[in-house]
Amino acid sequence: LDSQIEIVLVGPKATIESELQQRGEDPAGFPILEADQVVGMDEGATSAIRNKPQSSLVLGVQHLSGQALDVFISAGNTGAFLSAAVMMLGLQEGVMRPSIGALYPHEKGYSFLCDVGANTDCKPELLRQFGIMGAIFMQAVMGIAQPRVALMNIGEEKSKGTQAVQQAYQLLESTERLNFIGNAEGRDLVAQKSDVYVMDGFTGNILLKFAESFYYIFKKKMPDDPDIENFNFQNIGGLPFLGVNGNVVLGHGISNAEAFKNMIYRGRELVEVNLQDKISKALQGMQAEA
Amino acid sequence: LDSQIEIVLVGPKATIESELQQRGEDPAGFPILEADQVVGMDEGATSAIRNKPQSSLVLGVQHLSGQALDVFISAGNTGAFLSAAVMMLGLQEGVMRPSIGALYPHEKGYSFLCDVGANTDCKPELLRQFGIMGAIFMQAVMGIAQPRVALMNIGEEKSKGTQAVQQAYQLLESTERLNFIGNAEGRDLVAQKSDVYVMDGFTGNILLKFAESFYYIFKKKMPDDPDIENFNFQNIGGLPFLGVNGNVVLGHGISNAEAFKNMIYRGRELVEVNLQDKISKALQGMQAEA
Repeated sequence: LDSQIEIVLVGPKATIESELQQRGEDPAGFPILEADQVVGMDEGATSAIRNKPQSSLVLGVQHLSGQALDVFISAGNTGAFLSAAVMMLGLQEGVMRPSIGALYPHEKGYSFLCDVGANTDCKPELLRQFGIMGAIFMQAVMGIAQPRVALMNIGEEKSKGTQAVQQAYQLLESTERLNFIGNAEGRDLVAQKSDVYVMDGFTGNILLKFAESFYYIFKKKMPDDPDIENFNFQNIGGLPFLGVNGNVVLGHGISNAEAFKNMIYRGRELVEVNLQDKISKALQGMQAEA
Repeated sequence: LDSQIEIVLVGPKATIESELQQRGEDPAGFPILEADQVVGMDEGATSAIRNKPQSSLVLGVQHLSGQALDVFISAGNTGAFLSAAVMMLGLQEGVMRPSIGALYPHEKGYSFLCDVGANTDCKPELLRQFGIMGAIFMQAVMGIAQPRVALMNIGEEKSKGTQAVQQAYQLLESTERLNFIGNAEGRDLVAQKSDVYVMDGFTGNILLKFAESFYYIFKKKMPDDPDIENFNFQNIGGLPFLGVNGNVVLGHGISNAEAFKNMIYRGRELVEVNLQDKISKALQGMQAEA
């Protein structure tokens, strides 16, 4: 990492120092933000935030809010992390609901799935926002000039899908700034049909976890395959949480060291490309047009 | 196949006879049901049924309805096939909506996904029916005494998922005749957590097509792997269409000879175990209890 980038470790100071020492690192080399409460993985979001102001989740988001940090990364309790981010950072202007995006690896790079779990019941307008935020992400972070945006559906025709999805099709189609290519089906993910796949977080979450499990089958079957690591979700690092006033990256609860390293890279990208600002401008531009 | 089983070929007689001859088969060996109209793969369901009474889809379902056939199999236009089945066969008593089930292969056998595309917006009670029909299928056809039934969701807790899914959880939990094991997540499919996975047809269709595409990746990567064919959807044959008064098996539009062979086996099973009768009895039993 660039020497200008400073990594602040958030958590119980004694534990962090002892872990660093065990790895032969000088604890003085890292600023530590002391957080002596721990939010459990199954703890309810609201009570965790209320009752554990000294947890790493709450303190990290607080320091992000106060701009002492540029990006905050955690592999802790997702629900509590998201709630803390929404409550303490607030939604960006024009954003209906925050959403979780996921990069999905394919042979030649990545596509972007949005939403993958923050929103289960999604109104058509919200699905359109996933498309807009996804396109901005792929453009800004992945450098794709005109990202293709597809609506995940059960067939190619406009008339397919749930009521909400049918209406979302109309909205996406009428959004001029989007390179909307129509519906995509389950098999199109692997076929790299689109750069962004729009879907409700119920479908997205099930699809993502299912895809993840395939990596383990592949890995067992073909440990030496050169492409196998393309499918390893640990390599992708965390998932960006889009739509809040702050750069937040969610890690998987089972993240290993490689995953954390990649989450840090992912976080750096969000800051460098100023993703939030780009999302703000796009949404405000659309409001002005409307 | 048992010599008592007679295969009737439905379609344009001249085409069928010429195809049989090209394969060195005696056309006299198969009864042919002449159908000289063809429903296109993209044709609208209603107009196809209205305007093409002499198509194989319509004639096949008609002969099923008149009990001249015990089971009807087609890899034609799915929408038209399902509409014809519902209109001409009618729904079984107590069935809210017909549904499409799919066997999903895993290392030790199969699990059953329901629905995989017939119903996009699903009410909680309908999701429960998928569970009941799926359990009966796995019991009758796959010989699993007490099939485990899980609700596909985005987390283990009851409070997860869409409004409809949260309510479906309550209904499934309170259904005594079901061995309901709670929520399943995307990764649980591969882990063989359950025998039946209940989901709306929007999620199910996307998941199934996505899973299907993985087979092609596997196959390309590991053509000689002994387990690879477990993931080949062609080997499973068609998908049973549950809830109508007749045994109907839907084939994939791209079915090959192997797939057709397996569809015939699949169809035979439905007849042999008298699946419809078992579904009727279960639903009537539940109505009596209620």
